[in-house]
Amino acid sequence: MEAGLNFCLVTNECTLPRRKLAEKLNNFGYKCVDPSRIISPAPTACSYLELNNLRPRLHVWHELEEEFASVTRPMEASGLSANCLVIGDLMNRLSRDFIDESLEIMLNSPERPVLVSLGAGRYYKDSGRLRMDTGAYTAAFEYSLGVKAVNIGKPSESFFGRALELVGGSAEDTIMIGDDIVSDVGGAKRMGMRGFLVRTGKYKASDESGHKVKADCVFANLAEAADKILAITSVSL
Amino acid sequence: MEAGLNFCLVTNECTLPRRKLAEKLNNFGYKCVDPSRIISPAPTACSYLELNNLRPRLHVWHELEEEFASVTRPMEASGLSANCLVIGDLMNRLSRDFIDESLEIMLNSPERPVLVSLGAGRYYKDSGRLRMDTGAYTAAFEYSLGVKAVNIGKPSESFFGRALELVGGSAEDTIMIGDDIVSDVGGAKRMGMRGFLVRTGKYKASDESGHKVKADCVFANLAEAADKILAITSVSL
Repeated sequence: MEAGLNFCLVTNECTLPRRKLAEKLNNFGYKCVDPSRIISPAPTACSYLELNNLRPRLHVWHELEEEFASVTRPMEASGLSANCLVIGDLMNRLSRDFIDESLEIMLNSPERPVLVSLGAGRYYKDSGRLRMDTGAYTAAFEYSLGVKAVNIGKPSESFFGRALELVGGSAEDTIMIGDDIVSDVGGAKRMGMRGFLVRTGKYKASDESGHKVKADCVFANLAEAADKILAITSVSL
Repeated sequence: MEAGLNFCLVTNECTLPRRKLAEKLNNFGYKCVDPSRIISPAPTACSYLELNNLRPRLHVWHELEEEFASVTRPMEASGLSANCLVIGDLMNRLSRDFIDESLEIMLNSPERPVLVSLGAGRYYKDSGRLRMDTGAYTAAFEYSLGVKAVNIGKPSESFFGRALELVGGSAEDTIMIGDDIVSDVGGAKRMGMRGFLVRTGKYKASDESGHKVKADCVFANLAEAADKILAITSVSL
Protein backbone atom coordinates (compact mmCIF):
# COMPACT_ATOMS: atom_id res chain seq x y z
CA MET A 1 0.00 0.00 0.00
CA GLU A 2 1.42 3.39 -0.91
CA ALA A 3 0.68 4.75 2.57
CA GLY A 4 3.25 2.32 3.99
CA LEU A 5 0.78 0.18 5.91
CA ASN A 6 1.23 -3.56 5.92
CA PHE A 7 -1.64 -5.59 4.55
CA CYS A 8 -2.57 -9.03 3.32
CA LEU A 9 -5.60 -10.56 1.61
CA VAL A 10 -7.37 -13.35 3.49
CA THR A 11 -9.71 -15.45 1.35
CA ASN A 12 -11.53 -18.79 1.44
CA GLU A 13 -11.33 -19.07 -2.36
CA CYS A 14 -10.25 -22.59 -3.17
CA THR A 15 -10.47 -23.07 -6.90
CA LEU A 16 -7.57 -20.84 -8.00
CA PRO A 17 -3.90 -20.78 -6.95
CA ARG A 18 -2.64 -17.51 -5.42
CA ARG A 19 -0.78 -16.70 -8.65
CA LYS A 20 -4.08 -16.60 -10.58
CA LEU A 21 -5.96 -14.85 -7.77
CA ALA A 22 -3.35 -12.06 -7.80
CA GLU A 23 -3.67 -11.74 -11.59
CA LYS A 24 -7.45 -11.50 -11.25
CA LEU A 25 -7.26 -8.81 -8.57
CA ASN A 26 -4.67 -6.83 -10.53
CA ASN A 27 -6.93 -7.00 -13.58
CA PHE A 28 -9.69 -5.53 -11.39
CA GLY A 29 -7.39 -2.51 -10.93
CA TYR A 30 -5.70 -3.16 -7.56
CA LYS A 31 -2.29 -3.40 -9.33
CA CYS A 32 -0.26 -3.90 -6.13
CA VAL A 33 -1.25 -7.47 -5.29
CA ASP A 34 1.61 -9.97 -5.10
CA PRO A 35 0.72 -13.68 -4.60
CA SER A 36 2.77 -13.67 -1.38
CA ARG A 37 0.25 -11.19 0.09
CA ILE A 38 -2.59 -13.69 -0.26
CA ILE A 39 -3.60 -16.12 2.46
CA SER A 40 -5.89 -18.81 1.04
CA PRO A 41 -6.85 -22.29 2.29
CA ALA A 42 -4.73 -24.34 -0.15
CA PRO A 43 -1.24 -23.11 0.84
CA THR A 44 -2.30 -23.11 4.50
CA ALA A 45 -3.41 -26.73 4.11
CA CYS A 46 -0.11 -27.50 2.38
CA SER A 47 1.83 -26.18 5.40
CA TYR A 48 -0.35 -28.33 7.65
CA LEU A 49 0.48 -31.41 5.53
CA GLU A 50 4.22 -30.65 5.66
CA LEU A 51 4.14 -30.19 9.42
CA ASN A 52 2.31 -33.49 9.96
CA ASN A 53 4.12 -35.59 7.33
CA LEU A 54 0.91 -36.17 5.42
CA ARG A 55 0.69 -37.40 1.83
CA PRO A 56 -2.43 -36.09 0.14
CA ARG A 57 -4.91 -37.38 -2.38
CA LEU A 58 -5.99 -34.03 -3.88
CA HIS A 59 -9.77 -34.01 -4.20
CA VAL A 60 -9.66 -30.47 -5.64
CA TRP A 61 -10.12 -28.54 -8.88
CA HIS A 62 -7.03 -29.27 -11.03
CA GLU A 63 -5.86 -25.64 -11.17
CA LEU A 64 -5.29 -25.75 -7.41
CA GLU A 65 -2.85 -28.68 -7.54
CA GLU A 66 0.20 -26.43 -8.03
CA GLU A 67 -0.27 -25.08 -4.48
CA PHE A 68 0.57 -28.55 -3.15
CA ALA A 69 3.73 -29.18 -5.19
CA SER A 70 6.00 -29.08 -2.11
CA VAL A 71 4.28 -32.18 -0.72
CA THR A 72 3.19 -34.01 -3.87
CA ARG A 73 6.65 -33.98 -5.54
CA PRO A 74 8.46 -35.82 -2.70
CA MET A 75 5.42 -38.08 -2.32
CA GLU A 76 5.60 -39.12 -5.98
CA ALA A 77 9.35 -39.69 -5.67
CA SER A 78 8.85 -41.88 -2.58
CA GLY A 79 6.23 -44.08 -4.26
CA LEU A 80 4.22 -44.08 -1.00
CA SER A 81 0.44 -43.94 -1.19
CA ALA A 82 -1.76 -41.18 0.22
CA ASN A 83 -2.74 -41.14 3.90
CA CYS A 84 -4.73 -37.91 3.75
CA LEU A 85 -7.61 -36.52 1.69
CA VAL A 86 -7.67 -32.80 0.89
CA ILE A 87 -11.27 -31.85 0.06
CA GLY A 88 -11.98 -28.76 -1.99
CA ASP A 89 -14.47 -27.76 -4.69
CA LEU A 90 -14.15 -30.23 -7.59
CA MET A 91 -16.35 -28.08 -9.88
CA ASN A 92 -16.72 -29.75 -13.30
CA ARG A 93 -14.28 -32.45 -12.24
CA LEU A 94 -16.92 -33.94 -9.91
CA SER A 95 -18.03 -37.43 -10.93
CA ARG A 96 -19.08 -40.62 -9.15
CA ASP A 97 -15.80 -42.29 -10.08
CA PHE A 98 -13.65 -39.40 -8.80
CA ILE A 99 -15.49 -39.42 -5.45
CA ASP A 100 -15.29 -43.21 -5.13
CA GLU A 101 -11.61 -43.21 -6.08
CA SER A 102 -10.89 -40.72 -3.26
CA LEU A 103 -12.88 -42.88 -0.85
CA GLU A 104 -11.20 -46.11 -1.94
CA ILE A 105 -7.69 -44.64 -1.55
CA MET A 106 -8.53 -43.63 2.02
CA LEU A 107 -10.23 -46.93 2.92
CA ASN A 108 -7.25 -48.86 1.57
CA SER A 109 -4.71 -46.76 3.47
CA PRO A 110 -2.91 -48.82 6.11
CA GLU A 111 -2.90 -45.70 8.34
CA ARG A 112 -6.03 -44.07 9.76
CA PRO A 113 -6.86 -41.49 7.08
CA VAL A 114 -6.74 -37.75 7.82
CA LEU A 115 -9.35 -35.45 6.26
CA VAL A 116 -8.40 -31.85 5.52
CA SER A 117 -11.21 -29.61 4.32
CA LEU A 118 -10.57 -26.37 2.43
CA GLY A 119 -13.96 -24.90 3.32
CA ALA A 120 -17.04 -25.24 5.50
CA GLY A 121 -19.55 -23.62 3.11
CA ARG A 122 -23.01 -25.19 2.70
CA TYR A 123 -23.78 -23.91 -0.81
CA TYR A 124 -22.94 -21.03 -3.14
CA LYS A 125 -24.30 -19.37 -6.24
CA ASP A 126 -22.33 -19.54 -9.49
CA SER A 127 -23.62 -18.11 -12.79
CA GLY A 128 -27.13 -18.09 -11.35
CA ARG A 129 -27.03 -21.74 -10.19
CA LEU A 130 -26.94 -22.95 -6.60
CA ARG A 131 -24.11 -25.40 -6.02
CA MET A 132 -23.35 -27.78 -3.16
CA ASP A 133 -20.25 -26.46 -1.37
CA THR A 134 -17.13 -28.06 0.12
CA GLY A 135 -18.54 -28.32 3.67
CA ALA A 136 -21.24 -30.72 2.44
CA TYR A 137 -18.85 -33.01 0.56
CA THR A 138 -16.64 -32.98 3.65
CA ALA A 139 -19.63 -34.16 5.71
CA ALA A 140 -20.12 -37.03 3.23
CA PHE A 141 -16.49 -38.19 3.56
CA GLU A 142 -16.62 -37.78 7.36
CA TYR A 143 -19.65 -40.09 7.41
CA SER A 144 -18.14 -42.70 5.08
CA LEU A 145 -14.75 -42.79 6.78
CA GLY A 146 -15.88 -42.23 10.38
CA VAL A 147 -13.29 -39.46 10.76
CA LYS A 148 -13.71 -35.76 11.68
CA ALA A 149 -12.08 -33.33 9.23
CA VAL A 150 -9.57 -30.58 10.04
CA ASN A 151 -11.05 -27.37 8.67
CA ILE A 152 -8.72 -24.81 7.13
CA GLY A 153 -9.80 -21.28 6.24
CA LYS A 154 -11.80 -18.45 7.80
CA PRO A 155 -12.89 -18.21 10.60
CA SER A 156 -10.33 -20.67 12.05
CA GLU A 157 -7.85 -19.13 14.49
CA SER A 158 -4.80 -20.64 12.83
CA PHE A 159 -5.83 -19.05 9.52
CA PHE A 160 -6.08 -15.55 11.04
CA GLY A 161 -2.88 -16.29 12.95
CA ARG A 162 -1.07 -16.66 9.61
CA ALA A 163 -2.48 -13.32 8.52
CA LEU A 164 -1.12 -11.64 11.67
CA GLU A 165 2.31 -13.22 11.09
CA LEU A 166 2.31 -11.92 7.53
CA VAL A 167 1.40 -8.32 8.40
CA GLY A 168 3.77 -8.53 11.37
CA GLY A 169 1.64 -6.51 13.79
CA SER A 170 -0.12 -7.17 17.04
CA ALA A 171 -3.81 -8.04 16.93
CA GLU A 172 -4.75 -4.68 18.53
CA ASP A 173 -3.00 -2.78 15.72
CA THR A 174 -4.63 -4.85 12.97
CA ILE A 175 -7.94 -4.30 11.19
CA MET A 176 -9.83 -6.91 9.18
CA ILE A 177 -12.18 -5.62 6.48
CA GLY A 178 -14.69 -8.02 4.97
CA ASP A 179 -18.24 -8.64 3.77
CA ASP A 180 -18.92 -11.71 5.95
CA ILE A 181 -20.07 -10.82 9.47
CA VAL A 182 -19.27 -14.27 10.88
CA SER A 183 -16.17 -15.47 8.99
CA ASP A 184 -14.45 -12.09 8.48
CA VAL A 185 -15.56 -9.77 11.27
CA GLY A 186 -16.32 -12.47 13.86
CA GLY A 187 -13.14 -14.47 13.20
CA ALA A 188 -10.94 -11.36 13.42
CA LYS A 189 -12.57 -9.99 16.56
CA ARG A 190 -12.10 -13.33 18.33
CA MET A 191 -8.37 -12.84 17.70
CA GLY A 192 -8.42 -9.36 19.24
CA MET A 193 -8.37 -7.41 15.95
CA ARG A 194 -10.87 -4.78 14.97
CA GLY A 195 -13.45 -5.95 12.41
CA PHE A 196 -14.86 -3.61 9.75
CA LEU A 197 -17.83 -4.67 7.65
CA VAL A 198 -18.45 -3.50 4.05
CA ARG A 199 -21.89 -3.29 2.44
CA THR A 200 -20.82 -5.18 -0.72
CA GLY A 201 -20.69 -8.83 -1.84
CA LYS A 202 -22.53 -11.18 0.51
CA TYR A 203 -23.48 -8.36 2.95
CA LYS A 204 -27.14 -8.32 4.12
CA ALA A 205 -28.83 -5.52 6.11
CA SER A 206 -29.46 -8.01 8.95
CA ASP A 207 -25.66 -8.33 9.41
CA GLU A 208 -25.78 -4.99 11.26
CA SER A 209 -28.31 -6.10 13.85
CA GLY A 210 -29.27 -9.76 13.70
CA HIS A 211 -25.97 -11.32 14.79
CA LYS A 212 -24.06 -11.95 17.98
CA VAL A 213 -21.07 -10.38 16.22
CA LYS A 214 -21.06 -6.59 15.93
CA ALA A 215 -18.73 -4.85 13.48
CA ASP A 216 -16.56 -2.03 14.86
CA CYS A 217 -17.38 0.08 11.79
CA VAL A 218 -19.53 -0.38 8.69
CA PHE A 219 -18.67 1.17 5.30
CA ALA A 220 -20.29 1.36 1.90
CA ASN A 221 -17.28 -0.34 0.29
CA LEU A 222 -13.58 -1.12 0.55
CA ALA A 223 -12.45 2.30 -0.76
CA GLU A 224 -14.42 4.09 1.95
CA ALA A 225 -13.00 1.75 4.62
CA ALA A 226 -9.45 2.39 3.35
CA ASP A 227 -9.97 6.18 3.50
CA LYS A 228 -11.14 5.86 7.10
CA ILE A 229 -8.13 3.72 8.06
CA LEU A 230 -5.75 6.21 6.48
CA ALA A 231 -7.43 9.00 8.44
CA ILE A 232 -7.10 7.04 11.73
CA THR A 233 -3.47 6.15 11.12
CA SER A 234 -2.41 9.71 10.14
CA VAL A 235 -3.79 10.87 13.48
CA SER A 236 -2.50 8.08 15.71
CA LEU A 237 0.92 7.50 14.12
CA MET B 1 -43.85 -71.40 1.79
CA GLU B 2 -45.10 -74.92 1.19
CA ALA B 3 -45.12 -75.63 4.92
CA GLY B 4 -47.86 -73.04 5.36
CA LEU B 5 -45.79 -70.58 7.37
CA ASN B 6 -46.16 -66.88 6.66
CA PHE B 7 -43.02 -65.08 5.58
CA CYS B 8 -41.80 -61.87 4.00
CA LEU B 9 -38.46 -60.62 2.70
CA VAL B 10 -37.04 -57.53 4.39
CA THR B 11 -34.27 -55.79 2.44
CA ASN B 12 -32.44 -52.44 2.32
CA GLU B 13 -31.90 -52.82 -1.44
CA CYS B 14 -32.73 -49.49 -3.02
CA THR B 15 -31.79 -49.64 -6.67
CA LEU B 16 -34.45 -52.08 -7.91
CA PRO B 17 -38.25 -52.01 -7.62
CA ARG B 18 -39.86 -55.00 -5.84
CA ARG B 19 -41.06 -56.37 -9.19
CA LYS B 20 -37.45 -56.75 -10.38
CA LEU B 21 -36.19 -57.96 -7.01
CA ALA B 22 -38.79 -60.76 -7.07
CA GLU B 23 -37.73 -61.70 -10.62
CA LYS B 24 -34.10 -61.82 -9.51
CA LEU B 25 -34.88 -64.03 -6.49
CA ASN B 26 -37.06 -66.35 -8.56
CA ASN B 27 -34.24 -66.67 -11.09
CA PHE B 28 -31.98 -67.69 -8.18
CA GLY B 29 -34.37 -70.61 -7.68
CA TYR B 30 -36.69 -69.45 -4.87
CA LYS B 31 -39.66 -69.57 -7.31
CA CYS B 32 -42.29 -68.58 -4.75
CA VAL B 33 -41.41 -64.90 -4.32
CA ASP B 34 -44.20 -62.45 -5.10
CA PRO B 35 -43.36 -58.68 -5.07
CA SER B 36 -46.01 -58.17 -2.36
CA ARG B 37 -43.89 -60.34 -0.05
CA ILE B 38 -40.96 -57.89 -0.23
CA ILE B 39 -40.47 -55.00 2.18
CA SER B 40 -37.89 -52.57 0.81
CA PRO B 41 -37.12 -48.92 1.63
CA ALA B 42 -38.69 -47.35 -1.48
CA PRO B 43 -42.33 -48.44 -1.00
CA THR B 44 -42.01 -47.80 2.73
CA ALA B 45 -40.78 -44.28 1.97
CA CYS B 46 -43.66 -43.86 -0.47
CA SER B 47 -46.18 -44.69 2.29
CA TYR B 48 -44.43 -42.14 4.52
CA LEU B 49 -44.78 -39.50 1.80
CA GLU B 50 -48.48 -40.28 1.32
CA LEU B 51 -49.13 -40.10 5.05
CA ASN B 52 -47.39 -36.73 5.37
CA ASN B 53 -48.63 -35.13 2.12
CA LEU B 54 -45.09 -34.82 0.79
CA ARG B 55 -44.18 -34.22 -2.85
CA PRO B 56 -40.81 -35.76 -3.65
CA ARG B 57 -37.87 -34.87 -5.83
CA LEU B 58 -36.58 -38.40 -6.50
CA HIS B 59 -32.80 -38.42 -6.07
CA VAL B 60 -32.69 -42.16 -6.89
CA TRP B 61 -31.66 -44.60 -9.60
CA HIS B 62 -34.26 -44.28 -12.40
CA GLU B 63 -35.44 -47.91 -12.16
CA LEU B 64 -36.72 -47.16 -8.65
CA GLU B 65 -39.05 -44.34 -9.73
CA GLU B 66 -41.97 -46.69 -10.41
CA GLU B 67 -42.23 -47.42 -6.66
CA PHE B 68 -43.25 -43.78 -6.12
CA ALA B 69 -45.95 -43.55 -8.81
CA SER B 70 -48.76 -43.17 -6.26
CA VAL B 71 -47.30 -39.85 -5.11
CA THR B 72 -45.59 -38.58 -8.26
CA ARG B 73 -48.66 -38.95 -10.53
CA PRO B 74 -50.95 -36.68 -8.46
CA MET B 75 -48.01 -34.33 -7.89
CA GLU B 76 -47.44 -33.94 -11.64
CA ALA B 77 -51.17 -33.39 -12.15
CA SER B 78 -51.24 -30.70 -9.44
CA GLY B 79 -48.32 -28.76 -10.93
CA LEU B 80 -46.98 -28.18 -7.39
CA SER B 81 -43.24 -28.29 -6.83
CA ALA B 82 -41.39 -30.74 -4.56
CA ASN B 83 -41.13 -30.14 -0.83
CA CYS B 84 -39.22 -33.31 -0.02
CA LEU B 85 -36.03 -34.98 -1.22
CA VAL B 86 -35.87 -38.78 -1.35
CA ILE B 87 -32.19 -39.79 -1.30
CA GLY B 88 -31.15 -43.18 -2.63
CA ASP B 89 -28.21 -44.57 -4.58
CA LEU B 90 -27.92 -42.64 -7.86
CA MET B 91 -25.36 -45.12 -9.29
CA ASN B 92 -24.32 -44.04 -12.82
CA ARG B 93 -26.87 -41.24 -12.71
CA LEU B 94 -24.70 -39.33 -10.21
CA SER B 95 -23.36 -36.04 -11.57
CA ARG B 96 -22.61 -32.60 -10.20
CA ASP B 97 -25.63 -31.15 -12.00
CA PHE B 98 -28.02 -33.82 -10.69
CA ILE B 99 -26.86 -33.21 -7.10
CA ASP B 100 -27.05 -29.43 -7.47
CA GLU B 101 -30.48 -29.62 -9.09
CA SER B 102 -31.78 -31.62 -6.09
CA LEU B 103 -30.25 -29.05 -3.75
CA GLU B 104 -31.64 -26.07 -5.67
CA ILE B 105 -35.18 -27.51 -5.72
CA MET B 106 -35.07 -27.90 -1.93
CA LEU B 107 -33.51 -24.47 -1.30
CA ASN B 108 -36.15 -22.84 -3.52
CA SER B 109 -39.03 -24.63 -1.79
CA PRO B 110 -41.28 -22.18 0.08
CA GLU B 111 -41.76 -24.88 2.74
CA ARG B 112 -38.99 -26.21 5.00
CA PRO B 113 -37.70 -29.19 2.99
CA VAL B 114 -38.03 -32.73 4.33
CA LEU B 115 -35.20 -35.22 3.70
CA VAL B 116 -36.06 -38.91 3.43
CA SER B 117 -33.12 -41.28 3.18
CA LEU B 118 -33.44 -44.81 1.79
CA GLY B 119 -30.30 -46.04 3.54
CA ALA B 120 -27.70 -45.29 6.19
CA GLY B 121 -24.80 -47.24 4.64
CA ARG B 122 -21.30 -45.72 4.64
CA TYR B 123 -19.89 -47.56 1.61
CA TYR B 124 -20.31 -50.79 -0.31
CA LYS B 125 -18.42 -52.95 -2.77
CA ASP B 126 -19.72 -53.37 -6.31
CA SER B 127 -17.85 -55.29 -9.02
CA GLY B 128 -14.67 -55.01 -6.96
CA ARG B 129 -14.92 -51.23 -6.47
CA LEU B 130 -15.68 -49.44 -3.21
CA ARG B 131 -18.54 -46.95 -3.62
CA MET B 132 -19.79 -44.15 -1.39
CA ASP B 133 -23.21 -45.20 -0.04
CA THR B 134 -26.52 -43.43 0.53
CA GLY B 135 -25.81 -42.53 4.18
CA ALA B 136 -22.89 -40.34 3.10
CA TYR B 137 -24.84 -38.44 0.44
CA THR B 138 -27.61 -37.98 3.01
CA ALA B 139 -25.04 -36.42 5.37
CA ALA B 140 -24.04 -34.00 2.58
CA PHE B 141 -27.64 -32.87 2.02
CA GLU B 142 -28.25 -32.62 5.78
CA TYR B 143 -25.25 -30.29 6.02
CA SER B 144 -26.24 -28.13 3.03
CA LEU B 145 -29.89 -27.83 4.01
CA GLY B 146 -29.48 -27.74 7.79
CA VAL B 147 -32.14 -30.45 8.13
CA LYS B 148 -31.99 -33.92 9.73
CA ALA B 149 -33.14 -36.77 7.47
CA VAL B 150 -35.80 -39.37 8.24
CA ASN B 151 -34.14 -42.76 7.73
CA ILE B 152 -36.18 -45.58 6.24
CA GLY B 153 -35.02 -49.20 6.19
CA LYS B 154 -33.43 -51.70 8.56
CA PRO B 155 -32.93 -51.46 11.52
CA SER B 156 -35.67 -48.85 12.02
CA GLU B 157 -38.61 -49.97 14.14
CA SER B 158 -41.25 -48.80 11.67
CA PHE B 159 -39.61 -50.92 8.95
CA PHE B 160 -39.74 -54.09 11.06
CA GLY B 161 -43.24 -53.08 12.14
CA ARG B 162 -44.35 -53.31 8.51
CA ALA B 163 -42.82 -56.77 8.29
CA LEU B 164 -44.82 -57.90 11.34
CA GLU B 165 -48.01 -56.50 9.83
CA LEU B 166 -47.35 -58.38 6.61
CA VAL B 167 -46.72 -61.76 8.23
CA GLY B 168 -49.59 -61.08 10.60
CA GLY B 169 -48.07 -62.66 13.68
CA SER B 170 -46.98 -61.45 17.08
CA ALA B 171 -43.30 -60.54 17.56
CA GLU B 172 -42.78 -63.57 19.84
CA ASP B 173 -43.97 -65.94 17.10
CA THR B 174 -41.79 -64.36 14.42
CA ILE B 175 -38.20 -65.15 13.45
CA MET B 176 -35.90 -62.89 11.46
CA ILE B 177 -33.09 -64.60 9.52
CA GLY B 178 -30.28 -62.44 8.17
CA ASP B 179 -26.55 -61.99 7.59
CA ASP B 180 -26.23 -58.58 9.33
CA ILE B 181 -25.84 -58.89 13.10
CA VAL B 182 -26.82 -55.24 13.73
CA SER B 183 -29.45 -54.41 11.10
CA ASP B 184 -31.10 -57.82 10.81
CA VAL B 185 -30.63 -59.64 14.13
CA GLY B 186 -30.35 -56.52 16.34
CA GLY B 187 -33.28 -54.71 14.73
CA ALA B 188 -35.56 -57.76 15.00
CA LYS B 189 -34.60 -58.59 18.59
CA ARG B 190 -35.34 -55.01 19.66
CA MET B 191 -38.89 -55.61 18.40
CA GLY B 192 -39.22 -58.81 20.48
CA MET B 193 -38.66 -61.27 17.60
CA ARG B 194 -36.09 -64.01 17.59
CA GLY B 195 -33.01 -63.24 15.44
CA PHE B 196 -31.15 -65.98 13.55
CA LEU B 197 -27.80 -65.27 11.93
CA VAL B 198 -26.52 -67.02 8.78
CA ARG B 199 -22.83 -67.44 7.94
CA THR B 200 -23.21 -66.15 4.36
CA GLY B 201 -23.04 -62.74 2.66
CA LYS B 202 -21.64 -60.01 4.89
CA TYR B 203 -21.26 -62.35 7.90
CA LYS B 204 -17.91 -62.16 9.76
CA ALA B 205 -16.70 -64.55 12.47
CA SER B 206 -16.58 -61.61 14.93
CA ASP B 207 -20.39 -61.27 14.58
CA GLU B 208 -20.70 -64.25 16.92
CA SER B 209 -18.71 -62.69 19.76
CA GLY B 210 -17.67 -59.09 19.18
CA HIS B 211 -21.10 -57.42 19.32
CA LYS B 212 -23.56 -56.30 21.95
CA VAL B 213 -26.19 -58.17 19.92
CA LYS B 214 -26.24 -61.95 20.25
CA ALA B 215 -28.07 -64.09 17.71
CA ASP B 216 -30.54 -66.66 19.09
CA CYS B 217 -29.16 -69.25 16.64
CA VAL B 218 -26.44 -69.30 14.01
CA PHE B 219 -26.65 -71.40 10.82
CA ALA B 220 -24.40 -72.14 7.88
CA ASN B 221 -26.98 -70.78 5.46
CA LEU B 222 -30.66 -70.03 4.85
CA ALA B 223 -31.56 -73.62 3.94
CA GLU B 224 -30.19 -74.90 7.25
CA ALA B 225 -32.08 -72.16 9.14
CA ALA B 226 -35.32 -73.05 7.31
CA ASP B 227 -34.92 -76.75 8.21
CA LYS B 228 -34.48 -75.81 11.86
CA ILE B 229 -37.57 -73.57 11.81
CA LEU B 230 -39.66 -76.36 10.25
CA ALA B 231 -38.45 -78.74 12.94
CA ILE B 232 -39.39 -76.25 15.71
CA THR B 233 -42.82 -75.54 14.25
CA SER B 234 -43.72 -79.21 13.69
CA VAL B 235 -43.04 -79.78 17.39
CA SER B 236 -44.74 -76.70 18.79
CA LEU B 237 -47.74 -76.48 16.49
